[in-house]
Amino acid sequence: MKIMRQFVVIGCGRFGASVAKTLYSLGYDVLAIDKSEERIQEISDSVTHAVQADAVDENALRTLGLRNFDVAIVSIGSDIQASIMATLIAKELGIKKVIAKAQGELHGKVLYKIGADRVIFPERDMGVRVAHNLVSSNILDYIELAPDYSIVEIATMEEWAGKTLRELKLPTRYGINVMAIKHGKDINISPYADDVINADDVLIVIGNNEDLRKLEKKS
Amino acid sequence: MKIMRQFVVIGCGRFGASVAKTLYSLGYDVLAIDKSEERIQEISDSVTHAVQADAVDENALRTLGLRNFDVAIVSIGSDIQASIMATLIAKELGIKKVIAKAQGELHGKVLYKIGADRVIFPERDMGVRVAHNLVSSNILDYIELAPDYSIVEIATMEEWAGKTLRELKLPTRYGINVMAIKHGKDINISPYADDVINADDVLIVIGNNEDLRKLEKKS
Ligand SMILES: Nc1ncnc2c1ncn2[C@@H]1O[C@H](COP(=O)(O)OP(=O)(O)OP(=O)(O)O)[C@@H](O)[C@H]1O
Ligand SMILES: Nc1ncnc2c1ncn2[C@@H]1O[C@H](COP(=O)(O)OP(=O)(O)OP(=O)(O)O)[C@@H](O)[C@H]1O
Ligand SMILES: [Ca+2]
Ligand SMILES: [Ca+2]
Ligand SMILES: [Ca+2]
Ligand SMILES: [Ca+2]
Repeated sequence: MKIMRQFVVIGCGRFGASVAKTLYSLGYDVLAIDKSEERIQEISDSVTHAVQADAVDENALRTLGLRNFDVAIVSIGSDIQASIMATLIAKELGIKKVIAKAQGELHGKVLYKIGADRVIFPERDMGVRVAHNLVSSNILDYIELAPDYSIVEIATMEEWAGKTLRELKLPTRYGINVMAIKHGKDINISPYADDVINADDVLIVIGNNEDLRKLEKKS
Repeated sequence: MKIMRQFVVIGCGRFGASVAKTLYSLGYDVLAIDKSEERIQEISDSVTHAVQADAVDENALRTLGLRNFDVAIVSIGSDIQASIMATLIAKELGIKKVIAKAQGELHGKVLYKIGADRVIFPERDMGVRVAHNLVSSNILDYIELAPDYSIVEIATMEEWAGKTLRELKLPTRYGINVMAIKHGKDINISPYADDVINADDVLIVIGNNEDLRKLEKKS
């Protein structure tokens, strides 16, 4: 497989700017495009190139050499028509992978129809994550691995402090497995049965959602 | 600890609506408030109660019994003044935990100053996630456990298919531990050394970011 190095981010709102800056900080080449001069000035120090252009102007994008990019991220939200046009143009200029941000379901369907390789709903997806985090003060973060299984970060429950994993019997009592233990800045990624859990440790556990929910209810 | 059951979501844009619907689908009581009649109609079937009200009108919020809620999520984005006022009012009405969505750093700082218990930057945080996902076609999702450690979902590399975990020696070769293996809809959360990896399996691995980055580079 080939490493993808050249990214173009079209639309530098909060989401697009964050994608662009993160990619650049990870060492990739990033061209940032926005029609707003102000946005372009704000982002110019945090990306390889930042250019003011209207994303529905095919010639402008062609002139910027867009066809040489490996991935385009179209992150225009409110102006659905501009988002659709920009996605279409990026595809037609030959960019292999075009990721597009959608406002809602319908917008997303249209983006897929015109050739977007992946559609992202940042606000919706972050809303789902935050809601899951909120229903238990213990659940700090999570990944949904499959419809039924998740990995969650949980704070140590009061009654767990000072016990070893062997004593806690989490697999038999809750159906969950501890994969790592965070002690402050340290992290133990190969926990042993004799490792002791401290009150302010964070456990990284894997389990099925029903079992995890039971744990949430307890907390 | 007490189970938090009563949530009020103030501002039902894309982020707020997603938080509200997810909490409701998880079985919690959710009151949704928005000043837009249209937004309230859209969301009314997906939450316990949906009420049109202006979040900067303290009396309206008081009348809605806001002080009886355990958690408020203020998810007003563009109107920063309304976001700040609503957060202040929620705190003054005595809601213990107030989570507020921020547009940017400065907005976030103000929200903390006036008493928000947690400030969320959905677009920025999802941008970071998406960028990490993009730089390797193998990395499907990730949790940053600590500044140096992450859990990532990675697709099986071609040369791994058909081998056992023992043969792959991932801990010694890459410094990573395999915590789970996804085979289609099944998931194995206690992988053994003799388990064979298939070409279309997804591995859930934990490791330090530098080691994970080396793995990304390989892909
Ligand atoms: N035709 C266009 N060409 C280039 N940039 C555009 C165009 N239309 C909008 N943009 C830019 O896209 C960015 C994102 O647009 P907008 O703010 O409408 O989306 P959003 O979904 O609310 O963004 P976010 O929530 O990520 O902040 C803005 O910076 C805007 O200037
Ligand atoms: N004073 C207010 N009282 C009640 N609701 C409000 C108030 N001001 C704004 N809202 C509502 O908050 C919601 C989110 O606001 P807005 O669209 O400005 O934020 P946003 O950050 O762009 O949202 P998102 O990106 O999550 O869609 C909207 O539905 C809007 O009607
Ligand atoms: Ca915006
Ligand atoms: Ca937004
Ligand atoms: Ca909006
Ligand atoms: Ca995290």
